[in-house]
Amino acid sequence: MADKAQIQEAIKAQGEVVRKLKADKASKEQIDEEVSKLLQLKAQIGGDEGKHVFVLKTPKGTRDYNPKQMAIREKVFNTIISCFKRHGAETIDTPVFELKETLTGKYGEDSKLIYDLKDQGGELLSLRYDLTVPFARYLAMNKITNIKRYHIAKVYRRDNPAMTRGRYREFYQCDFDIAGQYDPMIPDAECLRIVHEILSELELGDFRIKVNDRRILDGMFAACGVPDDKFRTICSSVDKLDKMPWEEVKNEIVKEKGLPEEVADQIGEYVRMQAGGMELAEQLLQDPKLSKSKAAVAGLTDIKLLFSYLQLFKVTDKVVFDLSLARGLDYYTGVIYEAILTQAGVAPIPAPQEANGSTGDDGPVSVGSVAGGGRYDGLVGMFDPKGRKVPCVGVSIGIERIFSIMEQKAEVSAEKVRTTETQVLVVSAQKNLLEERLKLTSELWEAGIKAEVLYKRNPKLLSQLQHCEETGIPLVAILGEQELRDGVVKLRNVASREEMDVSRADLVEEIRKRTPQS
Amino acid sequence: MADKAQIQEAIKAQGEVVRKLKADKASKEQIDEEVSKLLQLKAQIGGDEGKHVFVLKTPKGTRDYNPKQMAIREKVFNTIISCFKRHGAETIDTPVFELKETLTGKYGEDSKLIYDLKDQGGELLSLRYDLTVPFARYLAMNKITNIKRYHIAKVYRRDNPAMTRGRYREFYQCDFDIAGQYDPMIPDAECLRIVHEILSELELGDFRIKVNDRRILDGMFAACGVPDDKFRTICSSVDKLDKMPWEEVKNEIVKEKGLPEEVADQIGEYVRMQAGGMELAEQLLQDPKLSKSKAAVAGLTDIKLLFSYLQLFKVTDKVVFDLSLARGLDYYTGVIYEAILTQAGVAPIPAPQEANGSTGDDGPVSVGSVAGGGRYDGLVGMFDPKGRKVPCVGVSIGIERIFSIMEQKAEVSAEKVRTTETQVLVVSAQKNLLEERLKLTSELWEAGIKAEVLYKRNPKLLSQLQHCEETGIPLVAILGEQELRDGVVKLRNVASREEMDVSRADLVEEIRKRTPQS
Repeated sequence: MADKAQIQEAIKAQGEVVRKLKADKASKEQIDEEVSKLLQLKAQIGGDEGKHVFVLKTPKGTRDYNPKQMAIREKVFNTIISCFKRHGAETIDTPVFELKETLTGKYGEDSKLIYDLKDQGGELLSLRYDLTVPFARYLAMNKITNIKRYHIAKVYRRDNPAMTRGRYREFYQCDFDIAGQYDPMIPDAECLRIVHEILSELELGDFRIKVNDRRILDGMFAACGVPDDKFRTICSSVDKLDKMPWEEVKNEIVKEKGLPEEVADQIGEYVRMQAGGMELAEQLLQDPKLSKSKAAVAGLTDIKLLFSYLQLFKVTDKVVFDLSLARGLDYYTGVIYEAILTQAGVAPIPAPQEANGSTGDDGPVSVGSVAGGGRYDGLVGMFDPKGRKVPCVGVSIGIERIFSIMEQKAEVSAEKVRTTETQVLVVSAQKNLLEERLKLTSELWEAGIKAEVLYKRNPKLLSQLQHCEETGIPLVAILGEQELRDGVVKLRNVASREEMDVSRADLVEEIRKRTPQS
Repeated sequence: MADKAQIQEAIKAQGEVVRKLKADKASKEQIDEEVSKLLQLKAQIGGDEGKHVFVLKTPKGTRDYNPKQMAIREKVFNTIISCFKRHGAETIDTPVFELKETLTGKYGEDSKLIYDLKDQGGELLSLRYDLTVPFARYLAMNKITNIKRYHIAKVYRRDNPAMTRGRYREFYQCDFDIAGQYDPMIPDAECLRIVHEILSELELGDFRIKVNDRRILDGMFAACGVPDDKFRTICSSVDKLDKMPWEEVKNEIVKEKGLPEEVADQIGEYVRMQAGGMELAEQLLQDPKLSKSKAAVAGLTDIKLLFSYLQLFKVTDKVVFDLSLARGLDYYTGVIYEAILTQAGVAPIPAPQEANGSTGDDGPVSVGSVAGGGRYDGLVGMFDPKGRKVPCVGVSIGIERIFSIMEQKAEVSAEKVRTTETQVLVVSAQKNLLEERLKLTSELWEAGIKAEVLYKRNPKLLSQLQHCEETGIPLVAILGEQELRDGVVKLRNVASREEMDVSRADLVEEIRKRTPQS
C-alpha cells in the first residue's frame, strides 16, 4: 500500500480536479468519472474512524434499473414476447459465460471487447458477447436442426461507453431466430412481419424497414469491378450512405480504399437508385451487368419472392428494397434488413449496439435504427464437428434504444409511470384498527386483489392517502368504527375523491369493477 | 503445446477411461465429465482435416435451459411474481457484476467461491454471489430508506457442484424484501403470508414454516452458559437437528465444540421442545432462565405479536414456532424462518443453495427446504458511509429446487408440457395453396390469434398434422379449393378429430372460443 501521506496528497489534487470540472460545468459523465477516482483514493485510507469506506457505485458502463425503469422494461418486454409467442416461438436460456474458445474467432477485431473471467483454476471462461454465438453452440451441441426461438438476455462488451449516448457495457439483446431447412423466403418474410408488428404495437412513431441481400451486394460489386477481397470494406463504406452524402462515400472508396474512380461511379449509380419494391428487383434483373452475376440474379429473384410474401403479410407499406443497405456483419449470407424510425419527433438517440449485430466491424449504424437482422446459413456449421449446416434467419430488436425512447416519452408524458399494480390500500381513519386492517387486507389477497396496508399501528389518514397519491393506487378501502358496526367498507376513489359504502360481501366485486385487471 | 504424439497417447488412454465407465454403467455425470476431458484433448490436435474442433459444452456447473424447462420456469415465475405484485412490490435490477470490494468481507469463508473477472485494465470486478448484498448497496447508494421490492436473477458461486443433486454454479435467486422503519412484526408477518401463498399456489404438497428469532437463540445460549464467542458455532450444530438425532448433535457440541455436558443438556431441553405457537412463546416467557435474558424476552414478545398477526392472515395452520431452527447466516438480527415440504411423496431433492442463504457457513440445510429468510437490520449500514441503518426483512424462495420438483412432476405427468402457445396451425390439404395459407395466417395474427404455418410450399397434410401433435397445437384451420370457393375454413380439433366448416368472418371468434386465452 502506498504511503498514507502520498494518498492524501493525491486526494487533495483529485479534489481540485473535481472542483474545477464542476466550476466549468463539465458534463455529468466527466464529473462522475473523476468523483469515482476521488472516492477510490479515499477508500484506500479509510473513513473518518479508519472504517473502510465503500465506493458506492456500479461498475463502469453498467447501471441499476430502478422500479420505474423496470416498469417500462416490463411493458416493452411484454409487447415483444407476446408477438414472438403469437408466431409460435419457444424460448431458451444459456449461461452468462461460455468457454472462452466458444467465442474465439467469432468476432474478428472486436474480440478484444470480450470480458474474460479470471483463471481461478478450471476452465477458461468469458462473458457472452451476444446471443447468436451461444445459440449456434446450443444448436450444434444438441444436434437441433429445426427451431423457432427467442432469447432475451444481457450481453457484455468492454466497449468504451459513451453513457450520454446510452451505450452500456452490460445491455440487453432481444433475438428471434428461425433455424431449419425450409423453402426460400418464407421464414425471412415472417421475420419482417414480426418487426412490423412490434414497431407498430410499441407506437414508436413511423418507421421504415430497408431490405437488401448480401448476394446482390456481392454481385453488384463484382459487376462494378471491385476485387473480391475488397467487398467487405466497400460494404462498410456503402453502409454510411444514410449518414453522409454520396460524394463523401465516393471519396472514401477512391482515396482511402484505393478503387478507381470509374468503379466508384458505377457503384454510385446502383446505390443511389431510389429504393423500391418488387418492381426495382424486376428492373435490376434486366440490368445488363447485374444479370450476368449468378449471385445477384439469385438475390434479386429471392427479393421478388420475398416481396410477394410481404404483400400477403400486408407489410409492404413499410418495407423497401434499398441497394444502399449493407450492414456490417460478416456472417450474413442472404437477405439483410434494418428498421429505422423516420418520425421527426424522435430525438437523436444513441446507436444501439445490438442492432449493430454481433460480429464483424464496429461501424456506425443509422441514426434511428431499432431492429436489424438477416440470414446466416453458415454459423452453426462452424460449431458442428462435421461442419453440418443449419440455415438460420433472425432479427434482433434494438431493445436498449427502445427503452430509451420509452423512458423519454414517459418523462414528458403527463401520465405517471406506476411501479406497482396495487389496486387498493386498506386504511383506517381512527386509531387501534390495525388488526381490522390486516384482516381485511388478508381477505382481499385471498380473493386475488392486489392490496396494501401501511406497516404502522396507527398511521395518519393523510399519510395513508399520500401513499396512494405517490404510488398511483386508485382505490382506498376505509375502515372505521361505524363501518365495522354496519358491516361495510367505505370505498374511495383517490382521483375523484368520491366515496361510497360497500357491503363487505360485495367489496371484492366492486374493486374489480373499478380497477383494470391484469 | 505438448508433442502431438503425446497428446494422441493421452487421447487413447482417456478413450479407454470413457469406454470402461460406459461398460460399467457409470453415472451420466461421471461419463460426461470424462468425455469432456477427451474432447478437450482432441481439440488440442484439431479435427480430421486439421480443422479446429470445438468442445461443445457449457462451462462446468452451468446448463442451458431448453424450451420445456423454460416453459416450466415461466409458469413458476408467473405464480411467484403475481404474488409479489399482489403484495404491492416493485422490482429492480442490478448488474451481474459488482466492484470486487463491494462483495469483500460479506461472505466470510465463502468469499473463495466468488467468481472474479480478469483484470483487463480498469476496475476489479466480481460476479454477484447473491442478490442481498447488491440490494443493500443499491439502497445505500441511492439513500433509499423505504422500499418493498423483489428481484429474480442469476447468481454465481464457484462451488464444487454435485450436479446429480441439482446444484449449479449459475443459479437463480428469487428474493422479496421489505426495507424501512416500521412497527414491529407487521412486515415480517407479510413475508410469512407470502411464503404461504406461493407454496400453496405452486401445489408442491403439504409444507410447514418454522419460525424462530435470533434474539431467542442468543438468550437461550446465554441462559445455558454458552460463551458469547461460541453462539454461532453452536447455532450451526443446532441447525442439524432436522437431519440427525439429538444424541449426535449433543456429541458434536460436547466433543467437537468443547462445551460441558450439562450445558449441552440444558440446550437440549429447549431445542427438543415440541414446536408450537403463541402458547409456547407464552410458556417460555415464564421460564425462569429465559425470562432473565433481555434478548430472549424481546424475541419471545415479538413472536407472540407475530403469531397474532399470522392469525389475522390465516396462516397459522402451517407456521410453527420451533426453537431448533437456527439458520446459518451471520447477518440475521431478529425473526428467522424456513419452509419445508413435508409430504412423503416428495423425492429427496437437492439442497437449494439459495435457501441456504447468502453468507456465512456452507452447512447443510433441511431436506425439503424451499424458502427461507429473516430480519437483517444491520446490512445496509455496512454500506452507508455514516453507518445509517435501514431495517430489512425478506424471504428467498428456493426457486431452483421448485424448478426441479416441477420438472419431476412434468416428467411423470400424462399431460405434455407445451413450449409454445400456438392456438392454430393453418394448413392446406392440396398443393399450391401456400399464398392462401400465408394470407389467412396473417389475418389471424392481425386479430391477435397465435398462429403458425409450415415454411414449405407444399407440405403434406400428414406432416402438418404431426407438427400439431408434437407441439400440442389444439386446432387446425384447413384450406382447400372447396373451402376457398365457399368462403369457409375447415376447423379441426386435433384431439377429437372433429371438423366443422366455419365462415371466414367467424373464424377468429370460433378459435377464441375453443382455445384458452392468455
